[in-house]
Amino acid sequence: MGGNKDQGDGRRKVTITAIAREAGVSVPTVSRVVNGRSDVAPDTRARVEELLRSYGYRRRTVAPGDRAALLDLVFNDLDSPWAVEIIRGVEEVAHAAGVGTVVSAIHDRAGAARQWMKNLRARASDGVILVTSALEPVLHKELHRLGVPLVVIDPAGSPALDAPTIGATNWAGGMAATEHLLELGHRRIGLIAGPPRLLCSRARLDGYRAALESAGIPVEDELIAPGDFYHESGFTGCETLMALAEPPTAVFAASDQMALGAIEALRRKGLRVPQDVSVVGFDDLPEMRWAAPPLTTVRQPLADMGKMAARTVLRQAQGDEIDSPRLELATELIVRASTAPPAAR
Amino acid sequence: MGGNKDQGDGRRKVTITAIAREAGVSVPTVSRVVNGRSDVAPDTRARVEELLRSYGYRRRTVAPGDRAALLDLVFNDLDSPWAVEIIRGVEEVAHAAGVGTVVSAIHDRAGAARQWMKNLRARASDGVILVTSALEPVLHKELHRLGVPLVVIDPAGSPALDAPTIGATNWAGGMAATEHLLELGHRRIGLIAGPPRLLCSRARLDGYRAALESAGIPVEDELIAPGDFYHESGFTGCETLMALAEPPTAVFAASDQMALGAIEALRRKGLRVPQDVSVVGFDDLPEMRWAAPPLTTVRQPLADMGKMAARTVLRQAQGDEIDSPRLELATELIVRASTAPPAAR
Repeated sequence: MGGNKDQGDGRRKVTITAIAREAGVSVPTVSRVVNGRSDVAPDTRARVEELLRSYGYRRRTVAPGDRAALLDLVFNDLDSPWAVEIIRGVEEVAHAAGVGTVVSAIHDRAGAARQWMKNLRARASDGVILVTSALEPVLHKELHRLGVPLVVIDPAGSPALDAPTIGATNWAGGMAATEHLLELGHRRIGLIAGPPRLLCSRARLDGYRAALESAGIPVEDELIAPGDFYHESGFTGCETLMALAEPPTAVFAASDQMALGAIEALRRKGLRVPQDVSVVGFDDLPEMRWAAPPLTTVRQPLADMGKMAARTVLRQAQGDEIDSPRLELATELIVRASTAPPAAR
Repeated sequence: MGGNKDQGDGRRKVTITAIAREAGVSVPTVSRVVNGRSDVAPDTRARVEELLRSYGYRRRTVAPGDRAALLDLVFNDLDSPWAVEIIRGVEEVAHAAGVGTVVSAIHDRAGAARQWMKNLRARASDGVILVTSALEPVLHKELHRLGVPLVVIDPAGSPALDAPTIGATNWAGGMAATEHLLELGHRRIGLIAGPPRLLCSRARLDGYRAALESAGIPVEDELIAPGDFYHESGFTGCETLMALAEPPTAVFAASDQMALGAIEALRRKGLRVPQDVSVVGFDDLPEMRWAAPPLTTVRQPLADMGKMAARTVLRQAQGDEIDSPRLELATELIVRASTAPPAAR
């Protein structure tokens, strides 16, 4: 058999490929026998095991105590550059700790969530990070019952969960975006809000309100357009605001994607950003430096939130106490080219 | 003890939380004992095991044959919206099959790659999908020796690997982008190329050359600017092209990110897209619909490439034969608002 080396103990080192060749089966079949998988025909298994024994093949056995740790990172959807930032942060910390990051999307569907839970149990994951996820209460209870450490990034609702949460200072960020526009001289400032069911949306809206109220400017309902964080709603939200009898001179979109949608709506109306209308976003996704014009926005430290979540869940998995059950990482206003003083009327 | 239910066989169902409370230890500690992990103090382990026995706790044992399957998806870097598209496709197929998708980044660093390989062995992954990855030959050999099925998405170099590859029709895509500009009437067309070490870059460049040659237009070296697929190089590449004595009237950037960089360079020079200069990208990342202006680009079916890779690696893991060792999924020209006929001179 080719490719075998003397191991020094008189036995030769044999490869799976060589065993497969000799047994007349595929390499994956030998691999399945080696890994103790059940989906191999009995006579094939016997033939392969005989060869493995006769060549003294060293199985890579995975004793439970040696099993590599896994961490489950669960999104509702993998449909935004937002997700990759969080994955990047979680993976960096987990990888360094020798822990694998299993990424899943449950699409707000109970079936997918239950399938995920089944997979989670079967792979005996050591910890779970949920992102903005509204798991059904029954699945929360099951997670709790399994004793799997849990951390929630950017929690969707009020922290009913008995789990640490990691978020950003959404209220302060909403306030900073609005204050920036006020300082430039804007007095009529529109908001394209996020989904009201999400805590982070409500905090950004309240920050907008607080900044206006501090400046003695009444909050007008007509200046608040609903949105869902995606581009399309930024586009339509901005169209609605611009159709007002007295349209705003600046728009704060509660996500970068909605800000891009708003800029496109303005472009189609022949309005220039920032000369005619200023636009501020929220998130600071890496590509916002390269929007046209480069976007003024509120940076959420998404990768850092991922890192912090991974560290927290790994510490829990080691049985350490968690100091603070709720952490908010600071947001930061990044001023680029999409904001300017209002045009003289 | 609260929360326990009669199991019908006279024993009560006990939760890990209840055991933890009674043992005076944390829930993760009980969990670690249940999962047979080694990092628990001997006396704690003994106390917990005694309680588990006395309450007849049903361990969630993971026999090797029942172990949930895992699939490793490996990127060089998780720094682009590009990655999330591939993850989305892989995860969709894997999730439906009850297989967990472990996402890793090895950052072109040998140390990180070796750490990943160590983790891969420890978690006994059932298959590996490498994305544009230039793993060192020694690690390739090791993967092969382990008998782990391997698929390469968007292979970096010539297919020396003994593994199926999944790509896009990069040559045809480069040709389609250039032909679109030719049909609009452009004759001086610049290219911002990708890294020459990558097969996909070379194919897009050759497609550009082939279209020009078919149209009887000589290929001029000065019209080809180097790039690395990232924004910054699109910006500087476009600056270089526009500084030529006779600048191009259209630019084909071999990635969407470089196209956005090129558009920003044009904007800073006061040039309008597409009235003054047309720009075509490559990838069709979801956010390109929302670029300003919406980008004409060549769609790579990234999520479909991920799906196909996951299906292929899962089939290999089951010992099935793979029909075609090299697949190229079709690209498609998507015409939006960043291209137009050249301005009259």
